[in-house]
Amino acid sequence: MKYLTVTDAQACILQAVKTLGIETVGIERCLGRVLAADILANRDQPPYDVSAMDGFALRSSDLAHGAATLEIVEDIRAGEMPTKTLATGQCARIMTGAPVPQGADAVIRVEDTEALADNQTKILCAVKPGNDIRQRAESMRNGAVVLTAGTEITPGVIGMLAMVKCSNVTVYRQPSVAILSTGDELEGLNDPFDANKIPDANSHALMAQVLSLGIAPVMLGIARDDPDELRRYLQQGLQYDVLLVSGGTSVGVHDYVRPTLEALGVEMKFWRVAMKPGHPMAFGVASGHDKENFMPVPSPQSSPASGRGGKRSQCEFELCSFVFGLPGNPVSSMVCFEQFVAPALRRMTGKTKLYRRTVEARLARDVKHQPGRTEFIRVTLHKEEGGYAAISTGAQGSGILASMAHAEGLMIVPAESHGLMADTYVTVQLLDGMSYQHEIGGEW
Amino acid sequence: MKYLTVTDAQACILQAVKTLGIETVGIERCLGRVLAADILANRDQPPYDVSAMDGFALRSSDLAHGAATLEIVEDIRAGEMPTKTLATGQCARIMTGAPVPQGADAVIRVEDTEALADNQTKILCAVKPGNDIRQRAESMRNGAVVLTAGTEITPGVIGMLAMVKCSNVTVYRQPSVAILSTGDELEGLNDPFDANKIPDANSHALMAQVLSLGIAPVMLGIARDDPDELRRYLQQGLQYDVLLVSGGTSVGVHDYVRPTLEALGVEMKFWRVAMKPGHPMAFGVASGHDKENFMPVPSPQSSPASGRGGKRSQCEFELCSFVFGLPGNPVSSMVCFEQFVAPALRRMTGKTKLYRRTVEARLARDVKHQPGRTEFIRVTLHKEEGGYAAISTGAQGSGILASMAHAEGLMIVPAESHGLMADTYVTVQLLDGMSYQHEIGGEW
Repeated sequence: MKYLTVTDAQACILQAVKTLGIETVGIERCLGRVLAADILANRDQPPYDVSAMDGFALRSSDLAHGAATLEIVEDIRAGEMPTKTLATGQCARIMTGAPVPQGADAVIRVEDTEALADNQTKILCAVKPGNDIRQRAESMRNGAVVLTAGTEITPGVIGMLAMVKCSNVTVYRQPSVAILSTGDELEGLNDPFDANKIPDANSHALMAQVLSLGIAPVMLGIARDDPDELRRYLQQGLQYDVLLVSGGTSVGVHDYVRPTLEALGVEMKFWRVAMKPGHPMAFGVASGHDKENFMPVPSPQSSPASGRGGKRSQCEFELCSFVFGLPGNPVSSMVCFEQFVAPALRRMTGKTKLYRRTVEARLARDVKHQPGRTEFIRVTLHKEEGGYAAISTGAQGSGILASMAHAEGLMIVPAESHGLMADTYVTVQLLDGMSYQHEIGGEW
Repeated sequence: MKYLTVTDAQACILQAVKTLGIETVGIERCLGRVLAADILANRDQPPYDVSAMDGFALRSSDLAHGAATLEIVEDIRAGEMPTKTLATGQCARIMTGAPVPQGADAVIRVEDTEALADNQTKILCAVKPGNDIRQRAESMRNGAVVLTAGTEITPGVIGMLAMVKCSNVTVYRQPSVAILSTGDELEGLNDPFDANKIPDANSHALMAQVLSLGIAPVMLGIARDDPDELRRYLQQGLQYDVLLVSGGTSVGVHDYVRPTLEALGVEMKFWRVAMKPGHPMAFGVASGHDKENFMPVPSPQSSPASGRGGKRSQCEFELCSFVFGLPGNPVSSMVCFEQFVAPALRRMTGKTKLYRRTVEARLARDVKHQPGRTEFIRVTLHKEEGGYAAISTGAQGSGILASMAHAEGLMIVPAESHGLMADTYVTVQLLDGMSYQHEIGGEW
């Protein structure tokens, strides 16, 4: 049985997945998506030289000897065009954003002037040519590429799209994702209480992980340990671009998931990864099967995507589904999602930043480790002089979901490590919701 | 005219805002919200001592002298209860997650055994009491608080909620947010092209910033520089919990926003902050006015929240609105949103992590700075040995929105700085979409 390293498993997955074609969405719905085409400027911005200040437009040569008194020939407001050309000794009162008149080559702010009677103003100091003028096309030149295909759409990008009046945006499609739990021991969220069963936390944690990538998954429910039922559920799941199956992929007598997937034509690329928590972790590809004839079956659980009507047949190139077999326990399942599923989903949506942001943090206490498997330890992060200290969230048993709920990051212990000493620096992946912190950060 | 420091301005805002009451939402819709009540475990998990491995449950004392041959009296699967008590010399075949039978005090994994005929198995090595047994209630004890009020709901928290079968979750309400742009020079997204006007990028960038906090704002459109029109728009905006107004708050002759807000009963707390880009930046509170009688006016622009029907009168304590007057240019507006509006909205939704995650990064090039104002420089971040290098995105003119679109973070130059030297370490706020990176991070 082959155990892949985490990075080899990631490479295997990322080699298999690709984008799924394009679609057009309104600007108000495109946050977090990825541009599938370059965006061009549709005008010069500013459209002419404009004032950067409230003040006076003037000829800098009139101030060659310092202060001077100038005649005000016009008032120019933003959105208005000047009507006069400045001659020597003349100036124009000008508002921020208003066009600089012919003849003027500089602006001086109102604070550096003194009002006089009879439409005159005293300019108190000299200025250089170009002073407080925003040049035509300084922000944007008509026809120039302002955003390139492949750009992830952040609020700043949405500002740029509005600036070029792009109200409909061509983006990469999102994959459809289905989530399935397996196992006789599981109790569904809306099932009656049974002390002998284990509530199905996996489906819901995975749902939230998918949602946090901006994709609304379809919840297929729980397949029991019955080969026929499992086959029906898996068949349904393979109608989606991505199927996440938790549980049932280990070597136990009752683990039918892998053989059933193989019987359905899924080529398993791997089913063991040298990581902790995590293995068993499987990945397979179902190529060329017919996703078009999919008839969605009513979902047994409430689903955030229940109104979606199931699978979109969006792949123009090849009909294929990607199956991730995730471990049955929630912590392992969530950690595997972060390492394998999230990068794949991000690549499928056209993103190039595939991996969780990492920070280097000081290890607060020694960590024991036997060489062999990459370990992901749930930690909280604490600001300190020069960076962060990483502190374990406590017991790291893979059944202890609370440690995941309270984690701010996953500390990575390299596979070959013989243990890490306190005060050495370690790499920590930042987790969801952790783009904010308690402290203001730094000294302002 | 008083210029507040950035931190004093933040303190002023955060002192004024508070949570807005509670509501119940389905588990599939609560990601990113904040728990408004403690969550209790509803069972022991596991409900009894269970096996952590596929193997054999046995009496460790039977192996006191090392290897031994034991009689298999039962097969126990997950979800089934044992029917027999183990006597000396007996064992039970047991699956991961299945209950440990009476009499047994340890589990040995199948790899450390050898199958024999006649329902017997050879155990190859001794084990300690408790070996590979997950204790009853190890993950969760019935009645114990598993999540406290105030917890931000991440995927891990959703896993915990599912584990205690909490399908409806009590969370803090979200504020209603309205966005208004002002100025004769602005051209709306769906207005015809006019070379003399400036496209309204602000409204849309602010919309995206609000959306990225999980709140769907209402877009009020553009109010022209007409006192009556402005008054009508501002009156409408004050029906929401939070009103964001961009433009019109500087000292220009045509800037009516501040006096109009004051005439409408808004107490302005400040209107100048010593920051760059950023000032003018205003904050005001409208207390005790009647938000109940709000009649939503059809929004002139497409709005992500157009179906919401406007204001929820959700504040049980006091009817008040908070008004943020943001600068007219998009970069300044976005930077001010990050420093002032986002922390306020996060506090209103019950969050305690109010500030952007910061990292310390090596400054790639010298930065000039005159003491006086806190400066926020748009940077990209580049992984290097031991952390990040921060590189300016180029021209930092406040009109240059592209620099914001391409930024990965905001580098903070303290107000009192006389400039920063290359290779010193600076504090960088991570921006939206930046919880992911190109590099895998570290060496695994």
